[in-house]
Formats: sequence, structure tokens, C-alpha cells
Amino acid sequence: MKLEVDSQPLREARREANNLRPVIILVEPQLGENIGTAARAMANFGLRELRIVNPRDGWPSEMAEKASANAIEVVKNAVIYSTFEDAISDLNFICATTARPREMVKPVLSPESAAQKMHQLTQKGEKTGIIFGREKSGLNNTDISHCDSIVIAPVDPDCASLNLAQAVLLMGYEWRRQFSIENEEQATLGRKTDFDGPAKEGIRLKDSRNATKGEMSGLFTHLESELEKSGFLRTVEKTPQMMRNIRNMIIRMQPTDQDVRTLRGIITSLVNGSHRSENSK
Amino acid sequence: MKLEVDSQPLREARREANNLRPVIILVEPQLGENIGTAARAMANFGLRELRIVNPRDGWPSEMAEKASANAIEVVKNAVIYSTFEDAISDLNFICATTARPREMVKPVLSPESAAQKMHQLTQKGEKTGIIFGREKSGLNNTDISHCDSIVIAPVDPDCASLNLAQAVLLMGYEWRRQFSIENEEQATLGRKTDFDGPAKEGIRLKDSRNATKGEMSGLFTHLESELEKSGFLRTVEKTPQMMRNIRNMIIRMQPTDQDVRTLRGIITSLVNGSHRSENSK
Repeated sequence: MKLEVDSQPLREARREANNLRPVIILVEPQLGENIGTAARAMANFGLRELRIVNPRDGWPSEMAEKASANAIEVVKNAVIYSTFEDAISDLNFICATTARPREMVKPVLSPESAAQKMHQLTQKGEKTGIIFGREKSGLNNTDISHCDSIVIAPVDPDCASLNLAQAVLLMGYEWRRQFSIENEEQATLGRKTDFDGPAKEGIRLKDSRNATKGEMSGLFTHLESELEKSGFLRTVEKTPQMMRNIRNMIIRMQPTDQDVRTLRGIITSLVNGSHRSENSK
Repeated sequence: MKLEVDSQPLREARREANNLRPVIILVEPQLGENIGTAARAMANFGLRELRIVNPRDGWPSEMAEKASANAIEVVKNAVIYSTFEDAISDLNFICATTARPREMVKPVLSPESAAQKMHQLTQKGEKTGIIFGREKSGLNNTDISHCDSIVIAPVDPDCASLNLAQAVLLMGYEWRRQFSIENEEQATLGRKTDFDGPAKEGIRLKDSRNATKGEMSGLFTHLESELEKSGFLRTVEKTPQMMRNIRNMIIRMQPTDQDVRTLRGIITSLVNGSHRSENSK
């Protein structure tokens, strides 16, 4: 049974949707070998786009290429960034892998729920990423405050430590598992496409999209600068903590691009509006 | 609400059921290091019983102990068998992990279905096992012919090879995932299990609470009044719509009582701070 014409534009749209797989971002990985085995774990489950923030031992890395085995293309195509914020700026949804919940008000997801969430967003054309921290210390609270969710694997508390490649492997496995489930469901419905499924549950209007991390950064910089001027961020030592709390709060809102514009409009108006009223006195 | 008497025999029965975790059987593993990392992957997901058929480099293995890190007890308690048949003789259900389906009439399961199946059997008091083959050649057809099912992980055909520890990791992960799902269901029924689970999904810190609707109202009134003064809500007819949008945005944030205080502090500061800078001119 063929329900639709398998036209060229349709095929291209599908190919594009298929390309929207989660990006893997390694933050300050220490050993080239771990980068290589992580790349191989990505390739095991069809993930291809690797970004690395400040690899400790420099780049390119012979060790990484060697350890990646037949996933060497993933390593060779990896893009290096000097800041975490640059590495995430074009992404719409990112989750931070951590061993324990942090003292932050932030959604905590299982690998399964995170993979489901990323699939739903992918179907709407949004770009997602999974963030992995340093081998020794993981992600710091500032890194995490930029993320939409925390993901924690259901490990035994008595033996909770996973190495980098294993953590990547589990997330890749869950992502591909959800991908397979979806494709099976589509096949059952007689549809040939990989991603244009029925409407999923969600909170978004049709035409809206999650703000990119770059748009979010612009908002945070704007707000921080105004809060500094206004004296809200009085104690310099407490500023990073306060801004983390504010970022966590606003990210939980899952703002659309329009929401970011509205929020920035509100900030500008609150600041300038009172100027105006001052001036008119 | 207590649904049943928490009697001593019942507790013991539960403990015993919890102890019926799948046995991991490695058939003729070649490198001690791989045995050690496989043991660690077992321990990550609460699996403790390791059996080894003819380890190539003999036993005990210093390499295995070293690579197991804090899962050394799993290695030390491993039992060595000289034949595969001896290693599986007390088990009720075993599945063979392979990279490809073999030319055999044998059920092929996903890791998820295999884990579900093993849980069902465990609840009836049956003992299950998962079999892993040699690093180079996997399980031979005779080994597999003893098994009830074949399990294949949904890897990308272009990069299908998982190392021994990774294969164990995925099976351990799926087993524990099913275990958690089951125990959550038990907990929902008011039953207490021995399972000391990982972090639950959720968004809240222990001590925080959602803001009351009264606190939210106070915030919205405060914001609306300042936005009116500043001129942001210029067109009176559009005000209700604009405030609805802003409310929706802020409610999606699921603010705590503390978040509401922070937001009101920000509003006050943005408004007053610029007064202050005006005054200081």
C-alpha cells in the first residue's frame, strides 16, 4: 500500500530531517583516547556530529584518531570551540549528562525521556545536543545552567561511574532505540517517511520554535548588563551564582524566539520607560 | 494507604526475588582487561554474578582485577567453568548476544524485550543469564543452539561492532531500566521494595515549592503596572492579549516562591536602578 507520492522534494525533506540527529558536545575532554572511543560509540548508533570545547591535549589528536577505529570520520570532522557558549549557540535544546542531580531547579530526565524529547523536537526541525563533561570533574554548574535538562542514567549508586565512551554509548543507544520505535510506527501506518509523523504532545504553537542558544545568550547578556547597571548584581562574588539561577529559571520557560524578543522588549522598556518618566518630570 | 502486611516471610521473598538478577556468562574471553571492564559495566547496573568459560589467559587474572576498578568483588567472586554446558546448567532462560542474526530458527529480541522477558521469569523465581562470546569471533553456532533467544542491539550497520564491556553495559542498562520501571509500579501500589533507585525524574529541589497562585498574581500585577508606566503596554486593546502571553510564558517556568521573589526584585531593580542612574547625572 502506497499512501503518497515519493517525490524528489519529499525525499530531500526526509533526508534533511534524518540529518537532524543530536550533536555530541564534549567539554574539555582530557584524553585523546577517550575522544576516540566516544566517537566510535557515536558511530555505533548513527551519530556523526562531534563538537569539542578545548580538548586538553590539543587538536588534531593522533590518539583520538587511533582509538576511533572505523569511526575516524567522526573524529576528523569534529569541530573545535574555545567556549562552551559558542559550541551550543545554534542549538535549540541541549541536555547535560551528570552522575547526580545538582542543586538546581532543572528538569531531570532518564536517557529514554531525553531521547524521546529530542526526537519530538527534531521532527519540528529543531537542533538538539547532548553535553558530556570532563572525565574527572564532569560539567560545572555554569555549564549546566545553560542546559534545558539534566540526564542521569539509572546506574547502581554503589558503582555509579561511567567512563566517557560508555556515557556516550548509552545516550546513542537510547536515541537510536527511539528512532527505531518511531520508524516502526511509521511503517505500521503505511508511511514511508522517517519523521513526518502525527502531531505529538507538546506545548508549542505550530509556527513557533524554541529559541536558539545564541538567542538565549543575547537575552542573558542583555539582562546581566542591565542588572549590573541597576545595582541588582551588587556583590561581585555572587554574580555568577545569581546569573546561573536566573538562567535556570528562564530556560525552564522553554522560550520561543518570539518570547525572547518579548522579554528583551520588557527589559528595555522597564529601563528606558523610567528614564522617560524621569525626563518628563 | 497500606495494601498488605509487611511480614517477615514476605520481605524475605522479596529480597530473594531481587537477588534473582541475570547471571553474566563470558565464553572464552581473550583479554583479562576485557573481563575487568565487563565486570565494572555489570556493577554499574547492579549485576553481580559473573561466570567465565575457559578464560584464554588463565585465572585468576591480575589484569582483570586491575581493570575492574571498584567492581573488583565481581571479578573475585567470578566462577570459572571448563564447559559452556556446565556454566548454564542451573539457569532457566538464557539469551545469546550476537552482532547479526544467525542462520537459525531462534527468536531474535531487542535488548529491551530480552530484559522484559528476564524480569517476567525472575518474578516467577526463574534464573536467567546473558551470554557473551569471544572478542574476535563471538559465540559459535553450538553455543547459540543452547540459548533460548538471540539478542541484537540496534547498532548502525555501518559501524556495528561493540566491544565486550559495551555489550555488557547495554544489557545491564536495559535490565536495570526494566527493573526501575517495575519497582516504580510497585512503589505506586504502596509496596516497599529493596530497590534503592537512582534519582527520579523531576524538576524540583527538595526544599523548594511551587509558588502559590496568590504569589503569581502579585507578580503579574506588579509587572503589568510597571509595563503600563513604562509604555510597553501602549495599545490598551492589546493589553489583555499581551499580558496573557506573558503569563503563559512565566507559568511555563513553573516558578518557586523564591523565583517569584527574584523576578520581582529584577523588575524593581530595572525600574529603580535607572532612576538612580538618572539622578546621579
